[in-house]
Amino acid sequence: MKSFHTARLKASLTLLVLFLWLLIPLAADEGMWPYNLVPKEYLAKKYNFKVTDDWLNHLRLASVRFGGASASFVSPDGLVLTNHHVGRGAIQNLSTAERNLIKTGFYARTRQEELKCPGTQLWVLQEIEDVTDKVLGSEKPGMSAQEVLAARQKAIAEIQKEASDKSGLRCQVVSLYSGSMYHLYKYKIYNDVRLVFAPEEEIAFFGGDPDNFTYPRFDLDIAIFRVYENDQPLKTPHYLKWKTSPLREGDLVFCSGNPGSTGRLLTYDQLLFLRDVNYPFTIANLKRRQAVLHEYARRGPEQERIALNTLFGVENSLKATIGYNSGLLDKDLMAKKLAEEQAIRKAIAADPELAREFGQAWEEIARAQKEYASFFKEYMLFERANAFNTVYFNLARSLVRGVQRERPASAPEMAGGRMPSEIHDDFEIVKLTDSLKLLKEQLPDLQETKWILGCQTPEEAAKALISGTKLKDPEFRKKLAEGGAEAINLCQDPMIKLALLVEPVSQGLRERYEKRVQAVETKNGTLVARALFRLKGTSIPPDATGTLRLSFGVVRGYVEDGKKIPFQTTLYGLYRKAQEKNFQAPWSLPERWLNRKASLNLNVPINFVATIDSIGGNSGSPVVNRKGEFVGTLFDGNIQSLPTRFVYEEKVSRSVMVHADGIIEALLKVYQARPLVDELLGK
Amino acid sequence: MKSFHTARLKASLTLLVLFLWLLIPLAADEGMWPYNLVPKEYLAKKYNFKVTDDWLNHLRLASVRFGGASASFVSPDGLVLTNHHVGRGAIQNLSTAERNLIKTGFYARTRQEELKCPGTQLWVLQEIEDVTDKVLGSEKPGMSAQEVLAARQKAIAEIQKEASDKSGLRCQVVSLYSGSMYHLYKYKIYNDVRLVFAPEEEIAFFGGDPDNFTYPRFDLDIAIFRVYENDQPLKTPHYLKWKTSPLREGDLVFCSGNPGSTGRLLTYDQLLFLRDVNYPFTIANLKRRQAVLHEYARRGPEQERIALNTLFGVENSLKATIGYNSGLLDKDLMAKKLAEEQAIRKAIAADPELAREFGQAWEEIARAQKEYASFFKEYMLFERANAFNTVYFNLARSLVRGVQRERPASAPEMAGGRMPSEIHDDFEIVKLTDSLKLLKEQLPDLQETKWILGCQTPEEAAKALISGTKLKDPEFRKKLAEGGAEAINLCQDPMIKLALLVEPVSQGLRERYEKRVQAVETKNGTLVARALFRLKGTSIPPDATGTLRLSFGVVRGYVEDGKKIPFQTTLYGLYRKAQEKNFQAPWSLPERWLNRKASLNLNVPINFVATIDSIGGNSGSPVVNRKGEFVGTLFDGNIQSLPTRFVYEEKVSRSVMVHADGIIEALLKVYQARPLVDELLGK
Repeated sequence: MKSFHTARLKASLTLLVLFLWLLIPLAADEGMWPYNLVPKEYLAKKYNFKVTDDWLNHLRLASVRFGGASASFVSPDGLVLTNHHVGRGAIQNLSTAERNLIKTGFYARTRQEELKCPGTQLWVLQEIEDVTDKVLGSEKPGMSAQEVLAARQKAIAEIQKEASDKSGLRCQVVSLYSGSMYHLYKYKIYNDVRLVFAPEEEIAFFGGDPDNFTYPRFDLDIAIFRVYENDQPLKTPHYLKWKTSPLREGDLVFCSGNPGSTGRLLTYDQLLFLRDVNYPFTIANLKRRQAVLHEYARRGPEQERIALNTLFGVENSLKATIGYNSGLLDKDLMAKKLAEEQAIRKAIAADPELAREFGQAWEEIARAQKEYASFFKEYMLFERANAFNTVYFNLARSLVRGVQRERPASAPEMAGGRMPSEIHDDFEIVKLTDSLKLLKEQLPDLQETKWILGCQTPEEAAKALISGTKLKDPEFRKKLAEGGAEAINLCQDPMIKLALLVEPVSQGLRERYEKRVQAVETKNGTLVARALFRLKGTSIPPDATGTLRLSFGVVRGYVEDGKKIPFQTTLYGLYRKAQEKNFQAPWSLPERWLNRKASLNLNVPINFVATIDSIGGNSGSPVVNRKGEFVGTLFDGNIQSLPTRFVYEEKVSRSVMVHADGIIEALLKVYQARPLVDELLGK
Repeated sequence: MKSFHTARLKASLTLLVLFLWLLIPLAADEGMWPYNLVPKEYLAKKYNFKVTDDWLNHLRLASVRFGGASASFVSPDGLVLTNHHVGRGAIQNLSTAERNLIKTGFYARTRQEELKCPGTQLWVLQEIEDVTDKVLGSEKPGMSAQEVLAARQKAIAEIQKEASDKSGLRCQVVSLYSGSMYHLYKYKIYNDVRLVFAPEEEIAFFGGDPDNFTYPRFDLDIAIFRVYENDQPLKTPHYLKWKTSPLREGDLVFCSGNPGSTGRLLTYDQLLFLRDVNYPFTIANLKRRQAVLHEYARRGPEQERIALNTLFGVENSLKATIGYNSGLLDKDLMAKKLAEEQAIRKAIAADPELAREFGQAWEEIARAQKEYASFFKEYMLFERANAFNTVYFNLARSLVRGVQRERPASAPEMAGGRMPSEIHDDFEIVKLTDSLKLLKEQLPDLQETKWILGCQTPEEAAKALISGTKLKDPEFRKKLAEGGAEAINLCQDPMIKLALLVEPVSQGLRERYEKRVQAVETKNGTLVARALFRLKGTSIPPDATGTLRLSFGVVRGYVEDGKKIPFQTTLYGLYRKAQEKNFQAPWSLPERWLNRKASLNLNVPINFVATIDSIGGNSGSPVVNRKGEFVGTLFDGNIQSLPTRFVYEEKVSRSVMVHADGIIEALLKVYQARPLVDELLGK
């Protein structure tokens, strides 16, 4: 009996120590916070800043979701400011070989000159509602992981449908803390968006891929659009006023945007999966895409124009993924992650009740990672279509899946919807050829590979597919979509045939993923998060989910390789950098900028950094001061910020912004856009 | 006004004349009648035969459905008599290279020696219920042909399910008169069936394919099984007593069996479709299958044994189809059909109300035939699997469709169910090779053809598919079926892959057929039948539907090429014919028959004919006299009977039976089966 008591006492003591360690409040400015979970006490305590509902609601309603990224209203007449690279697709869609707006930039001197951007949709978050009980209430005792997932998905679909029908808004349920909380987000959608201003890409993306994810920077990475309603500029009280006082080091700033995804609540085994399976595959694939695009771009200026938008995305993803992975390759970071997890698991193991409830979660997630690794390559090549890298395949698959899911109502919309404004068959052939080569290299013995290639080389197969498809014709797509399963199944179009051919294996892989990975991660991820709540309270921020979040930090430089990096850069630095690089691309400057240098105040700041917690998707986020005034727009993070995908850090990790002052100086002096500046400054 | 009245009067007169013509009662013995629609008045009037409910119920309960054909109970201890060629599959399944029961015949002298036939199922019709109102009540005004079909199918499925659940019987709704009437048939199923007696195929199928569908004949085409329940012979009061009085020319006889399908209510355009599209394709396909099977059979005695069962089916279908088509190629027959149809359409056109209700039906059916012709070849090759002629493909498709229809419960049963007891890969390769050749010839440019063949010849492709598949292994099939969609979709088995590959186009063709042909034929076929009822009353018999029917006629010879063909043949004729043919196959005789000739009474009749209306599916039907006593079993029709698929005729068209006396003489003298004879004769 004695030894038992001793052991128990020892365990209790260990647990107590752990609890004390775990309960140390977060001292850092970590967190991309949902608007209904903002850490008001922390802000009050650390920064003596009182978050009021009015302040919060105004910032939320001035924040805009732009594609997968962010933007903000910056005038009462519906001006929306975002990054050039966020608006790039829309600008590219307005361009042709004759009028390349990416290259020349654009400024609408009058409202009549503003250019309508077809397909561009902006979302504004109107309301958040906690529906956790409804979603988790769908779970019945004894359900398998797969059944739990299915039950939640069903509940979510019902909640979304009911809310959409009732409110007329776009309603989406967001899963927070690995499925521990479910919040319903309701968006107002704006469909009439017009281009007002875009600088030349040379200045918007000064430094190009080499300088991407680095600092110091000198980029005018902005684009300005205007939202219309009923063919009139949108009148809105919820816009950000331009800052009135100068920005200083140490200033508290806030960022309101849609960070895409972080993995800070992932278990150690999930990180290992990313490091050893997912990222190596993804990086290799992005590298080969980059090489193919570069080669295509070298064929001539028109090919360069065509390739550039895709290339930008590929290089951006490549650099980001390498950066994320660098964190996982950092032994200290991983050791810290492991130690934290072990501490939590030890604390749980020591308490029989906690152990029963949460004890298995980590192991089950670990098993799911092993399972995932066993078919990850096939999953990426087929279900994620890495082997069929052409817009035509995406169109074909949408049509095929549209009829297979028996949703003919949505099919015609979809059939015409997601189409880029220009498709170039030689470009599509180049991309498809390389991805079919990848398929042949990776899965040479698969029956589907043999069927797709037959006796042809990947290039021959790609040419036959691209030149044979009629999917470019919107009438053809519409007819197919309206013809339903019969029309699709009997269609002789080679790209539709390809999509039909790979559908069984793609579906099988998706089912395998959903059943053996996603369902297990959802069920056990919820348990891990609940365990964390039990031990740490709810002071931990949730991972990013591509939805509106508020983060904060201070304007501050940092030290890199023993050298102090100042918190902001100036126009002077821009010209100096260009000169250092002999004005060679990607450090060349637009003619306008060369011609008008003399008129500029070179002391005006162009970019600045802050400790704001951010990640991809935050691009275009407005950054505001205590008064909620616009002080800049986030457009990047430094290279040190990339590993914060997994572990927050604020010593050297920085978000990078375009400075509000630099925007005004450039608009006035370089672009002579006085009316636009007057509207921004509210004059 | 005057001219109008005159025209109207003229029309009315025409109509009256037509009505009079149409209303002439059928003087012929036409009809395979459902048991609840037997023409009692006609039988009473023409034959002075009173059909009682007892007589009818007893015959129905003694009648047995055996596969797609017929049989009957012939002893109180569950003996079931059918044709050898109906029981052939079951007998073949009990055979091996060492014990070829098809060749040697079989007789179980004791019950212990009776051989269990796995997979053989016998159905006995317990009850018929009219559910017309329920099925047709599902139709709402304004529904399209496709919606009408879907609504009826849904109603039928519900009726069947409810009835099955309630009664524990196998319940099937039967559509009569092209969907004008719907009757619910309830069957008791017997699963324990054992082989008692089978003669050598030489005598069962004496004359082989050359004599098939001809008369005079000399075949002992019988096989005897016994039904068991709870491992004991089934005790039943509903069995047919053996005849006690001799059979004479002019005797009224009845036939109770399951005729498969007739097309007497088809419109003229449907007949044209069969003549010009369906039959030419089917005949050509059967001929090439026949040639391939013959070639395989010539490789050796074991190959001959393997090919023979399939060959029998192919040659039988070929001869039947050519015979059916001969009717359609007969100009007089077609002219008669056309005249009848035109008379009816004229009568309908003359009455505005009838014209509005029925006037469009024939034209719509005609359009559907044109539509069907446009994809018939593809439909046969893909959806009817003519391009994939191997049992492995059938197994693969069953598995694929099992999971796609999301019926996992039935999948494991199916996975093990329909498998023949022996599969020979070289035989499967030969069949698949030729059907892939057919595909290549008929649809060389189709993407699926190119994928399936790739750079291979049909033979190479067939070899790769057959040698690569593991579907022979029941464990493998079971695992696949249990693994559901994920397992099937990710299965690497080449035959499963093939089934998945052709599924979209097959499904598309099925959808096209159901929507543009079947639905139109169902909706308008109902209208045509209703129009016939309106004009002719319900004295016309419905087309055959593979369900239990009663037909009747008289024992009678006929004249062919000016020569009188007697109503029966004798054992003497058998030996004479064999001698004429020098005992060469297929007119060779089993050794037993040669050895025991002297002991036989050669005057005993072996086969006989009657004017009974029958068609394929009636094989094995019991034929009884007025007392309901067994006088023989139907096993064939003469060549003149084949065109009766479309138009009834009784001058030269005859059903061919094995004579009850011949059975007893052979069993006693040739097979020394005294105990069996005693049981049959009730001694």
